[in-house]
Amino acid sequence: MNHIILINCKDRAGIIRAVTSFIFESGGNVVYLDQHVDKDAGIFFMRIEFESSDNFETMRFKANFESKIGLPYQMDWSMYSPETIPNMAIFVSKYNHCLYDILSRYKSGELKVNIPFILSNHNDLRYISEQFEIPFYHIPVTKENKAQAEYEQLELLNRHKVDFIVLARYMQIVTENIISKFTNKIINIHHSFLPAFAGAKPYHAAFKRGVKIIGATSHYVTEELDAGPIIEQDVVPVSHSHSIKDFISKGRDLEKIVLSRAVNLHVERKTMVYNNKTVIFS
Amino acid sequence: MNHIILINCKDRAGIIRAVTSFIFESGGNVVYLDQHVDKDAGIFFMRIEFESSDNFETMRFKANFESKIGLPYQMDWSMYSPETIPNMAIFVSKYNHCLYDILSRYKSGELKVNIPFILSNHNDLRYISEQFEIPFYHIPVTKENKAQAEYEQLELLNRHKVDFIVLARYMQIVTENIISKFTNKIINIHHSFLPAFAGAKPYHAAFKRGVKIIGATSHYVTEELDAGPIIEQDVVPVSHSHSIKDFISKGRDLEKIVLSRAVNLHVERKTMVYNNKTVIFS
Amino acid sequence: MNHIILINCKDRAGIIRAVTSFIFESGGNVVYLDQHVDKDAGIFFMRIEFESSDNFETMRFKANFESKIGLPYQMDWSMYSPETIPNMAIFVSKYNHCLYDILSRYKSGELKVNIPFILSNHNDLRYISEQFEIPFYHIPVTKENKAQAEYEQLELLNRHKVDFIVLARYMQIVTENIISKFTNKIINIHHSFLPAFAGAKPYHAAFKRGVKIIGATSHYVTEELDAGPIIEQDVVPVSHSHSIKDFISKGRDLEKIVLSRAVNLHVERKTMVYNNKTVIFS
Amino acid sequence: MNHIILINCKDRAGIIRAVTSFIFESGGNVVYLDQHVDKDAGIFFMRIEFESSDNFETMRFKANFESKIGLPYQMDWSMYSPETIPNMAIFVSKYNHCLYDILSRYKSGELKVNIPFILSNHNDLRYISEQFEIPFYHIPVTKENKAQAEYEQLELLNRHKVDFIVLARYMQIVTENIISKFTNKIINIHHSFLPAFAGAKPYHAAFKRGVKIIGATSHYVTEELDAGPIIEQDVVPVSHSHSIKDFISKGRDLEKIVLSRAVNLHVERKTMVYNNKTVIFS
Repeated sequence: MNHIILINCKDRAGIIRAVTSFIFESGGNVVYLDQHVDKDAGIFFMRIEFESSDNFETMRFKANFESKIGLPYQMDWSMYSPETIPNMAIFVSKYNHCLYDILSRYKSGELKVNIPFILSNHNDLRYISEQFEIPFYHIPVTKENKAQAEYEQLELLNRHKVDFIVLARYMQIVTENIISKFTNKIINIHHSFLPAFAGAKPYHAAFKRGVKIIGATSHYVTEELDAGPIIEQDVVPVSHSHSIKDFISKGRDLEKIVLSRAVNLHVERKTMVYNNKTVIFS
Repeated sequence: MNHIILINCKDRAGIIRAVTSFIFESGGNVVYLDQHVDKDAGIFFMRIEFESSDNFETMRFKANFESKIGLPYQMDWSMYSPETIPNMAIFVSKYNHCLYDILSRYKSGELKVNIPFILSNHNDLRYISEQFEIPFYHIPVTKENKAQAEYEQLELLNRHKVDFIVLARYMQIVTENIISKFTNKIINIHHSFLPAFAGAKPYHAAFKRGVKIIGATSHYVTEELDAGPIIEQDVVPVSHSHSIKDFISKGRDLEKIVLSRAVNLHVERKTMVYNNKTVIFS
Repeated sequence: MNHIILINCKDRAGIIRAVTSFIFESGGNVVYLDQHVDKDAGIFFMRIEFESSDNFETMRFKANFESKIGLPYQMDWSMYSPETIPNMAIFVSKYNHCLYDILSRYKSGELKVNIPFILSNHNDLRYISEQFEIPFYHIPVTKENKAQAEYEQLELLNRHKVDFIVLARYMQIVTENIISKFTNKIINIHHSFLPAFAGAKPYHAAFKRGVKIIGATSHYVTEELDAGPIIEQDVVPVSHSHSIKDFISKGRDLEKIVLSRAVNLHVERKTMVYNNKTVIFS
Repeated sequence: MNHIILINCKDRAGIIRAVTSFIFESGGNVVYLDQHVDKDAGIFFMRIEFESSDNFETMRFKANFESKIGLPYQMDWSMYSPETIPNMAIFVSKYNHCLYDILSRYKSGELKVNIPFILSNHNDLRYISEQFEIPFYHIPVTKENKAQAEYEQLELLNRHKVDFIVLARYMQIVTENIISKFTNKIINIHHSFLPAFAGAKPYHAAFKRGVKIIGATSHYVTEELDAGPIIEQDVVPVSHSHSIKDFISKGRDLEKIVLSRAVNLHVERKTMVYNNKTVIFS
């Protein structure tokens, strides 16, 4: 059996020793350890993977870990089994490239999630859900029906026990209520190298500014638009010879790769969030 | 003999034919041609290199070109000999990496310019000017002496017939007066991927925002700070494990490479500016 | 109407003038021109796009171009309409990522081709052809049936008037006979930065060598394995912490992007081949 | 006081716990830990930095560490103080860009080494040694004087207590004898993305093959030419429009950056070598 523990706490001497000793004494064998100390903030972060025998009692381990390590060190910690497959909802609008990329990875077993449904404010991409045989819900959002739409979205998320949400070019703002229920559990892809060109039409803005690189940024969604903790970014060179249409075309490839990398990092429990930034374990 | 012509004008049919025919009939042989049409703006850009016999009469060619091509097509055009070596002034403050990089390229013949002097508002880098045997002028700039400092700077620029200025991490704002006298002839290096993190302390801002890439941007200086036409940009990946000091260290390598690329493009007459953007010929 | 002309010929003075004059006099308006001279080989290459009125007589233009320009300059030239959609066959084996990527681009209209069929030596990916409703032909290849398999492949290629073939991770060698019938018309993706790690299992070889970057290369297929003209390459950084499985996973993203870029360049008539190298127009 | 320990040993359970416990009990506070397990080879690697009080007895610590940890776990380990500045010799021939880059970093305090001398088989770069006031030794190497040249080189290396050697485009093969005395202590820069284009004239070979990226590789020198453990690699895109001269020019920038990164990693004790590969700690 394999286990993953994510830890953050106030930095102090002896944490690694304490944790690795506890795991060792509990019969575990550490196979991966990555840690980070933010010296300015005085915070310690660690991701540990360890193996155990198959009759390892996870519940008992967790109780003991909390009393002997978690509490004394005032840790914020969580423990996962890599075998647990999370439920991932996908929100889309009209662009299909990110959706296709995610679903093809899902279908080929590259992306280890369940996808209970695809939700959209438009019907344009329903055909893809049919291609991949995944339920599709059309919930249009207008000024008038916002509360009702949110209610329907939440009902779906609850009913399907959704663990996290991927906004695969969902061109609609997610409500504060949903954001607060899914803190650091909504992943968005923005089509610029943030913080440059936040907001609408970033390729148009990039073209107007005459930049020589364009980018894409995946981040956790917070209430402030395009300002959440960044998970992954990448860029591609452009030149004066490229039109806005070329920017959009080159950007599509970036967006889908950068989003999928972020989703994978989240699924593999390799992300931690603090101070509106991320620690991304290797 | 080799000649370079840079052209921009309102786009219309037949420009390439007209120019290449004129060169052909004048005894020239086009060895390079790159053109670009900005369809939104309706502007045509072209860079042509052609060879001629050694008894080619450049003055007569220019006069004829103006009357037969330039005027009819209402061109903004200029003609250069690649053998003409421009005079390049360097402005620095306290950081030495860009200065060292430029001077070592200069010394080894990689960068084809004359460097009549290095100007600084501090004395810290005088030792490098001595290492490379280039005159160094120390002109401190304070609130009180601004006018006098500008006067001294202009006197130096005029006396040495400076063609263009490189701000190799010059941490002082160049005056409007100098900018207006050297339009599109002052090259700055800014240590971020503009338009993100314009202004002071971009590495600190990038660190605070938690970006996963940092960049550097070389651009022509305009009155608006860090908002001039971008010549060249590049980026390097960073992670949570990098401190601000690491950002600065990685950034140094970017800055010097990105600045030197821009300087070379300018020297080789491969840049054109319009609408606060650049066309960079290959 | 838009037209594309691709030209290569021995380099000499006046070619651009001659071609642009001819187009001008035939009522065309050049909207794009990119040219390249290989000085060592003494060869001139050009790609021109021009607009014409809708009653432009293409046949007559081509005949005149050949007699007045093509013959005198001993050109190898061809002319295309961007509206002509080529027929592209896809050959696959068991890996699905490149196939999914191509088909999703095709389905969304990003890739302007017809796909008459998918051919495979295995049945594993038949389900994808069904998802996208494209005919699937299973032609196993063994030592014994090679001639018969080639016969069936050629029959399919001829019957469907296939213009070019994409090997989207086809793990089987295409026969010399087919290669000779589709010279510079078969595009392969190899999962290394060629010429490093040609042949089988490049990720394993890269892992063993301890490289810090891995790559992917799309190229036209020639008789010599993995040695044809390179169209596009890209790389991604790796470290000691990545396993062969990680290399393969990172490589998948590279492969599909690099292959799709090459296919697009081919479809847009932006590639020319000479001396086992490519000219890629912008 | 700060201390760095590098460890490698056969992988087994409890190593991290044992080491961190020992450091904790010795009064140290771990501020950085990075570890790697090569599962195929069954080898464990770790780099630890810890702080101690200023009256920490390093000698006693080392003796105890060896008896209580090193011996029982059969570790290959070493301990360093970051304050110890190593002696680095530079070997060059005629190209100056890597030398200039290293010396400017050295002069500005970015590179924390002593440089007792520069050695060359030519006199071309003597002027740079004078610019930077570093002793320069000219030891020509011919077929006839090989033994004598090696003797002089070794005498210099011994007399100046050289810790490691940087071949900054030294176009001469270092003798087996010197390599064996400086195992994993000679850093070379090769101007290709190895293993592609090993040996002489890699830019010419890359041009001939028509690659779309060129690269540079820094590696430890072993007896087999260009086949030692790779420390760092990077690449830059090229196109058909670039000549061999352009490749060389673009390559210069890569070479100097890639070499300097490798030198810094070595100086900061972030490299470990096994099975002709490197582990590079973050």
